[in-house]
Amino acid sequence: MEKVSYKNLAREQATAVRAELEKKYAEYVAQGLKLDMSRGKPAPDQLDICDDLLSVISAGSDVADTTPDVRNYGGLDGIPEMKEIFAEMLGVSTKEIIVGGNASLTMMFDMISRSVTHGVLGNTTWCKLSEVKFLCPVPGYDRHFGICECFGIKMIPIAMTEAGPDMDEVKKYVENDASVKGIWCVPKYSNPSGITYSDDVVRAFAALNPAAPDFRIFWDNAYCVHDLYEEGDKLLNILEECRKNGKEDMVYIFASTSKISFPGAGVAVMAMSEANIAAAKKVMTYQMIGPDKINQLRHVKYYKNLDGIMAHMRKHAALIAPKFEIVLETLERELAGLDIADWTAPRGGYFISLDVMNGTAKRVHKLMADAGVVMTGCGATFPYGNDPQDRNLRIAPTYPSVEELKIASELLCLCTKLAALEKIMG
Amino acid sequence: MEKVSYKNLAREQATAVRAELEKKYAEYVAQGLKLDMSRGKPAPDQLDICDDLLSVISAGSDVADTTPDVRNYGGLDGIPEMKEIFAEMLGVSTKEIIVGGNASLTMMFDMISRSVTHGVLGNTTWCKLSEVKFLCPVPGYDRHFGICECFGIKMIPIAMTEAGPDMDEVKKYVENDASVKGIWCVPKYSNPSGITYSDDVVRAFAALNPAAPDFRIFWDNAYCVHDLYEEGDKLLNILEECRKNGKEDMVYIFASTSKISFPGAGVAVMAMSEANIAAAKKVMTYQMIGPDKINQLRHVKYYKNLDGIMAHMRKHAALIAPKFEIVLETLERELAGLDIADWTAPRGGYFISLDVMNGTAKRVHKLMADAGVVMTGCGATFPYGNDPQDRNLRIAPTYPSVEELKIASELLCLCTKLAALEKIMG
Repeated sequence: MEKVSYKNLAREQATAVRAELEKKYAEYVAQGLKLDMSRGKPAPDQLDICDDLLSVISAGSDVADTTPDVRNYGGLDGIPEMKEIFAEMLGVSTKEIIVGGNASLTMMFDMISRSVTHGVLGNTTWCKLSEVKFLCPVPGYDRHFGICECFGIKMIPIAMTEAGPDMDEVKKYVENDASVKGIWCVPKYSNPSGITYSDDVVRAFAALNPAAPDFRIFWDNAYCVHDLYEEGDKLLNILEECRKNGKEDMVYIFASTSKISFPGAGVAVMAMSEANIAAAKKVMTYQMIGPDKINQLRHVKYYKNLDGIMAHMRKHAALIAPKFEIVLETLERELAGLDIADWTAPRGGYFISLDVMNGTAKRVHKLMADAGVVMTGCGATFPYGNDPQDRNLRIAPTYPSVEELKIASELLCLCTKLAALEKIMG
Repeated sequence: MEKVSYKNLAREQATAVRAELEKKYAEYVAQGLKLDMSRGKPAPDQLDICDDLLSVISAGSDVADTTPDVRNYGGLDGIPEMKEIFAEMLGVSTKEIIVGGNASLTMMFDMISRSVTHGVLGNTTWCKLSEVKFLCPVPGYDRHFGICECFGIKMIPIAMTEAGPDMDEVKKYVENDASVKGIWCVPKYSNPSGITYSDDVVRAFAALNPAAPDFRIFWDNAYCVHDLYEEGDKLLNILEECRKNGKEDMVYIFASTSKISFPGAGVAVMAMSEANIAAAKKVMTYQMIGPDKINQLRHVKYYKNLDGIMAHMRKHAALIAPKFEIVLETLERELAGLDIADWTAPRGGYFISLDVMNGTAKRVHKLMADAGVVMTGCGATFPYGNDPQDRNLRIAPTYPSVEELKIASELLCLCTKLAALEKIMG
């Protein structure tokens, strides 16, 4: 069949195409599929390549020479060797690093929680304010939005462009509304669009003159080393750019090894100005004696340095690049030219963002579910789960096998077409 | 010298005794000691006996059969096998368990933090209240008091008896003041006195009728299996007792393997009613995806069950009971009958509490420091660091060697005597 915009199909043609799609869809349903494209998590083979991490510390002699003893109490901000690796990874000084437990999500939640109960660098505690707002570039990461929801922080959606958030909008809010206290960013291989913020966008962030002295950029650099190809996207160093403007306190950087080593047993990190570090530690010292230092030492012994991490990430890429490619090839083959969908072609990260025809995302999601394929919940990528145009679907290609993805992607295209035709034909 | 109350010494005798003590003290100072009795942490040999835990998971085959995969995301409240061990250890159901990361301190801090930001089971969030108070049995654990201080919670000291906190005082506050929201307890081998709450005290706790619906007993059962001798102290099950009175929501229980396996890399736990569990998880789900499940599996494979833990605790006891004994023998030999000091003789836990003559604790502490022996800071065992009678010193016997403890204990007795005589003689 020739590629022609669905919107230009004559009624008769549309009816014929739709009938054919419905027939194919029924065949898929009859197969009784049971697939899952919803989860942004590594597949078992990605975990297997890291299993040697489990045995890198196997006897007392591996830890006995550590000072202080990694087995015992102490070390609020992590072991020096782990700080060095993260400092190199994030392009900051080791004095600007706090190494945490197994989750950067917890470090972000705790940062907000401290802001609510203790305030930010001497400013009014957020729990005493009548309103606190966060800017949320959309589509974005549902767990970021979840933290805001948990603390009753009002979320304002900001449109994403191909270069990052719409900085005119960001600037307007940040510089005119003192109740805007933060913005969530996944600056490299953004969740879910996969785009990387341009240098201009990063510089625009660093040049903000916030109305609120306690405004902070939550820079979740979750995918900083998660390139699918040798030539990865380059992201400007936000802390350095902020420092050039004397605004180094304006940004908190987060990252982890969750998708480098093990999601359940990796090591998380925060990087920020020394003033912000000191403020965080002032409260953290009541919350913990120190993170799991043995697990940090495991990572140090296994990866040794940033080169070791980058070498390991190439193994991940070899496993998951084909998965991204099968989805993208299928989208291109099936949907290009039909004028019913747009999608991103990320060169790293964990997701592909698919915009189907306005008003049909929920329908596509339901068609997929009815045929046995679970996708991320509709609206998950928007604050309050509300996708105002009902068009965004997040595809998580890493967990299923290539074979499963092939089937799931084809079905996704079929459902996207079917829902579009239903919509067009009314 | 005959044992006679220092208070009954004639002026002349006192002068002679003091001169002798000063001479001996000068000899100690001349030795240039460098000892530390301040830290309630295991000695390296206690960590060595657990080193096999490091290799119990050494290859993918050790984790590959887990469902869900312990390496990956998931499992907000811990793995089932770890829940079973803790349920047995604390005498609760696995449904009443949340397994955490490496620190019960963090679980306690987070519990208070959630109460401040989200309230307790639907009651007003504590940050909206003009005053929140906690009862603090004294002497007690400085890190408990630290959490209160961190959140601006007013602390009310409660006297400890040999059977636990003075329950008349506790009842008076809890039942008449709705701003009293909690009490800190270390019910078994209490920090620092080492006493275990009697059955009557536990039952009195379970029978409280709090003025505040969100009053909670913070039951930090840190030393629940930390017996020094075969026949350990027995503690009544507080959750069971509360349940008998229909008050199972009134208590939060905390524990960990910090002083079972590794202080820096153990596993922590909370136990409480299912309603409290559900409320905690409702917020926790925004804070984390799950704790380190690989480390939990390590503990499960290494200890297997409560019997495995108890067998391991006997190894700890063999290493540290002699340390407690050398301190207690020295105190008995040097100070008994002089009417200038009281101390406890714990049968478990990590501390010995020494009450020197009123108004001399700081002086004893300084004399020790000047002679090269670090002790826990004066007042640390009281809210706001304020020991109103300036008499309590916490002895932490586990970290130094037996030989070091012998010297440090003798010096401590000497300093206690000297400070007492200085005080008496004016």
